[in-house]
Amino acid sequence: MRKIGKKEIEDIAMGATVLGTGGGGDPHIGKLMALQAIEENGPIDLLSLDELNDDDLIVPTALMGAPTVALEKLPNGEEASTTFSMVQQYLGKKIRATVPIEAGGLNSMIPLALAAKMKIPVVDADGMGRAFPQLQMTTFYLNGVSPTPMVMADEKGNVNLMNTIDGPWAERIARAVTVEMGGTVMLNLYPMTGKQMKKSGIPDTMKLAQVIGQAIREEKEAGRHPINKLLEITNGYQLFTGKITDIERNTDGGFAKGITTIEGLKEDRGKIFQLHFQNEHLIATEGDKLRCATPDLIAVLDAETAQPITTEGLRYGARCIVIGMPCHPMWITEKAIEMTGPRYFGYPYDYQTIEELQRKA
Amino acid sequence: MRKIGKKEIEDIAMGATVLGTGGGGDPHIGKLMALQAIEENGPIDLLSLDELNDDDLIVPTALMGAPTVALEKLPNGEEASTTFSMVQQYLGKKIRATVPIEAGGLNSMIPLALAAKMKIPVVDADGMGRAFPQLQMTTFYLNGVSPTPMVMADEKGNVNLMNTIDGPWAERIARAVTVEMGGTVMLNLYPMTGKQMKKSGIPDTMKLAQVIGQAIREEKEAGRHPINKLLEITNGYQLFTGKITDIERNTDGGFAKGITTIEGLKEDRGKIFQLHFQNEHLIATEGDKLRCATPDLIAVLDAETAQPITTEGLRYGARCIVIGMPCHPMWITEKAIEMTGPRYFGYPYDYQTIEELQRKA
Repeated sequence: MRKIGKKEIEDIAMGATVLGTGGGGDPHIGKLMALQAIEENGPIDLLSLDELNDDDLIVPTALMGAPTVALEKLPNGEEASTTFSMVQQYLGKKIRATVPIEAGGLNSMIPLALAAKMKIPVVDADGMGRAFPQLQMTTFYLNGVSPTPMVMADEKGNVNLMNTIDGPWAERIARAVTVEMGGTVMLNLYPMTGKQMKKSGIPDTMKLAQVIGQAIREEKEAGRHPINKLLEITNGYQLFTGKITDIERNTDGGFAKGITTIEGLKEDRGKIFQLHFQNEHLIATEGDKLRCATPDLIAVLDAETAQPITTEGLRYGARCIVIGMPCHPMWITEKAIEMTGPRYFGYPYDYQTIEELQRKA
Repeated sequence: MRKIGKKEIEDIAMGATVLGTGGGGDPHIGKLMALQAIEENGPIDLLSLDELNDDDLIVPTALMGAPTVALEKLPNGEEASTTFSMVQQYLGKKIRATVPIEAGGLNSMIPLALAAKMKIPVVDADGMGRAFPQLQMTTFYLNGVSPTPMVMADEKGNVNLMNTIDGPWAERIARAVTVEMGGTVMLNLYPMTGKQMKKSGIPDTMKLAQVIGQAIREEKEAGRHPINKLLEITNGYQLFTGKITDIERNTDGGFAKGITTIEGLKEDRGKIFQLHFQNEHLIATEGDKLRCATPDLIAVLDAETAQPITTEGLRYGARCIVIGMPCHPMWITEKAIEMTGPRYFGYPYDYQTIEELQRKA
């Protein structure tokens, strides 16, 4: 067990946003919420997977919805008390700890903020090792853990509990409820035992986020560009450098979908790149050529500061570096690729690992 | 307590369809479900309001959704076991009896069919004395009973429980879940005590439906047109007689909305009438003139057989008699009219009682 205080929050929020691959919510808001919760309730206990007991009840916490809406409509904190107590009442057991469902600026911070408020620890793990747009896209689900019973609450006091026959049904109904509740909701889902968590969670996501965030901060303090250090830590590749010349956006069924066009600069001058996103960046292309594909991670960094830019933060004219990072090995199975690969999202490409694509590029 | 057998079912289904004011579901399907349930489980116990104990748990049962969809997608009976047990688990109490939320061909029958299956009695009452398109439009809600905790289930096995801050929020979220679950779902809602039921329920709806159905049947057997007897029992008025010349329909957000145009025949020759519906018939007009308005009841009867025609059963060319019937007095308050009057549904008319409108006609 280690303590997460205000200092750690800054680095984790930054690093989680890199891992959020354009999604997972706005890091600034997430950070403020976590900082305020620590201010009020003291540092947060972070448990590693091996500190869990097999029969502990672990319940992930997340915010669901289009991040564009989350910017304007934040949880007031009461939702968590509502959902936590409904889960406990329904399952008849006390929650030992919470955990993020995904890595991302907001969705890494929300569990920290709420854990501080509820005075329970957070498990250093998550269910994606990145962010994904749909809630069945987790290593929890891949390993047989059901997303339901799932409890959702809005800031008005409405609360909804569902039990569905599978993950896609949970996603489908939850998305409709989210839209109706106003576009973003707090949820507790994938309640599981400590034993299930140890088997299905991606370990040490907070630690990785913190290492990434710290590297970006320290490199900048040392007057160096953080990109090399970042690629070293994440085993990532620089995909291209350029200037955003077009962003096509639409919010569809609770998702922020779109395509960003980037004109190459420096060594990439004369080339045109596109990033396709659905809350998260899902594929990067250069003309017809695939450069990086989900479940591998795509992060857009400000060319000067290496600050990660979320899909909702993309702006015309921004100069950026786009990097690709290998996903956690749990995602490289046939079943996992079927669930999260480019074809699932309607893109006409088979998944190829970032390493393969780099060899070809 | 009295027993409802197969013979009573026929009459109740017919009468409830008259009270359903065009909505409340298809009587044929409802009847088949109830008959089959009685076949398998024996007659159903019907309790009058004064037979309830103050602390009994009474939980209404209904089918929600556009009736056009309900025709194709019926509950398989398992939904009820799912929702009943979820309600009981959540409230920690056994359900004493169920009751219809509204009068209507399907929604009067569903509670009977499910009660037979669950081996519990049905209360002879309902929450509307007619059918309405939205679930907060009940005398239960008018009298302070919350529609939630509400449990919905589909035929696939998905189940959803919600607790909302008010009735319109329950309606809104439930409608979205219904659409997502496939267009129609089984639900248990408005769980209440026997004491609340006695105060807020409209008494003897089943008995009234049965009297209406029996009158239609017996008059026809005696070779008389049932219309006069029907108007006598319901204190109703014949509004007009004519032929359907146009039906405009659209299914919008889970509601079957539309306008039926009727050209007058016989004494109404030369006149044009319109019926505006949203699942149920809500207003009847003659040119600009209001002839009957929600919450009063509008029923369309086959001109020859006096068989009630639901809004989804309206067909071009059909000859019909349209009657208006006064609603239960509980609906004639300012608060109730605000909740169910013509302006609530977007029609540019103030509510006037059927008696007032008849004096003017």
